[in-house]
Amino acid sequence: MSGKLIGVGTGPGDPDLLTLKAVRAISTADVVASFAKRGNASNARAIANSHIHSGQIEELLDYPVTTEIHRHDAAYRAQIKAFYDEAAERLGGHLDAGRTVAVLSEGDPLFYGSYMHLHVRLSPRYETEVIPGITAMSGCWSAVGVPLVQGDDVLTILPGTLDEAELARRLADTQGAVIMKLGRNLPKVRAALAQAGRMQGALYVERGTMDSASSVPLSCKTDDSAPYFSLVLVPGWSTRP
Amino acid sequence: MSGKLIGVGTGPGDPDLLTLKAVRAISTADVVASFAKRGNASNARAIANSHIHSGQIEELLDYPVTTEIHRHDAAYRAQIKAFYDEAAERLGGHLDAGRTVAVLSEGDPLFYGSYMHLHVRLSPRYETEVIPGITAMSGCWSAVGVPLVQGDDVLTILPGTLDEAELARRLADTQGAVIMKLGRNLPKVRAALAQAGRMQGALYVERGTMDSASSVPLSCKTDDSAPYFSLVLVPGWSTRP
Repeated sequence: MSGKLIGVGTGPGDPDLLTLKAVRAISTADVVASFAKRGNASNARAIANSHIHSGQIEELLDYPVTTEIHRHDAAYRAQIKAFYDEAAERLGGHLDAGRTVAVLSEGDPLFYGSYMHLHVRLSPRYETEVIPGITAMSGCWSAVGVPLVQGDDVLTILPGTLDEAELARRLADTQGAVIMKLGRNLPKVRAALAQAGRMQGALYVERGTMDSASSVPLSCKTDDSAPYFSLVLVPGWSTRP
Repeated sequence: MSGKLIGVGTGPGDPDLLTLKAVRAISTADVVASFAKRGNASNARAIANSHIHSGQIEELLDYPVTTEIHRHDAAYRAQIKAFYDEAAERLGGHLDAGRTVAVLSEGDPLFYGSYMHLHVRLSPRYETEVIPGITAMSGCWSAVGVPLVQGDDVLTILPGTLDEAELARRLADTQGAVIMKLGRNLPKVRAALAQAGRMQGALYVERGTMDSASSVPLSCKTDDSAPYFSLVLVPGWSTRP
């Protein structure tokens, strides 16, 4: 009898933001799998660390590339596809042997998560469960206490990788917005917010749910550096009883 | 010395989707407050029930109105404003007495949550912490195992209360979408999806993270009834390595 695949959301960083369900799934799984950039520790595994024990098999899934090749490059897509195929095959071997496999996924597994690539490959063949996690954006707006959207507000989630004109167009046409994937896109995101008339209220948040969390109005951030764990929040909710 | 206000996300329904942090905050608070429709039990309180004990003070905050008066009606806004003012004053009394007050909030407190109205009234005056929760939409897409957005996808969160033309325009201009607040808006939402050419893939999900969760392609749902715990998911993510 085959094992079970479980996509486990570990939340945005603080180990206390794991759900009870995630803790149980992690601590009772036969196999714990986690993604990492080659040569780096896995963020999701670090969050789950105190619930993993020596009796469990661990699978570390190292991305062959991250930002060395542009993600629209055919070579990038080919390498990433081969990586997910091989990872699915490796975990499939454990599932065939009847093992329960927990795949750790930072944030929420089905919301911009790498787990999705394993899910589409394995869920047609094996029993599968997905345990949702706190997203990075929830972690950030909670850390800074900013009410984001209410009532009939539209909320738009934007990757900072979009071009400036498209970012500006979408920012001008929504109540609330979250801009992810900042990194080197920060100057472009800033320009798009200004063009859309949405700089006021825009908040830059760094390391949302870590001890070192910090936030500043984006208009006060003058440098162009933005680490991986950063995003911009644009609160909606202007009419409030 | 004043007490501390804590907005606690209880997640979408399954008590196992409470975070470790939420469980600790609920079980150690001096006062546990929860919102409910008058005459009904509080959903958030039901989720947190096993962590509340008899030594705690409970505050039940009963909405004076929900759908009896239209939410854009001046009478509705006046009654709701008075309700939040009174609730904030009541909780403020506990905070002045040095008590820790946990306000239970279904889903995530700062994402379309009633807690936001207390937060803006009380956080300027008292120490405040917000504990994020799993949103209803995360609960739903996880329950049905549908990968929603990936890579450069834009995700748009839409209240079903928007008019049909606006819903259709926005649905035609996004990769992924989540449509909340269905209820009596379902026929309009269905028409907007058809107009936008987005019926294919649209999924109707009912009672996302309860034992009785169910989902059907929206194109297969022929009746117009949709309970409170329902939403429509429109997956993006068409290009996948």
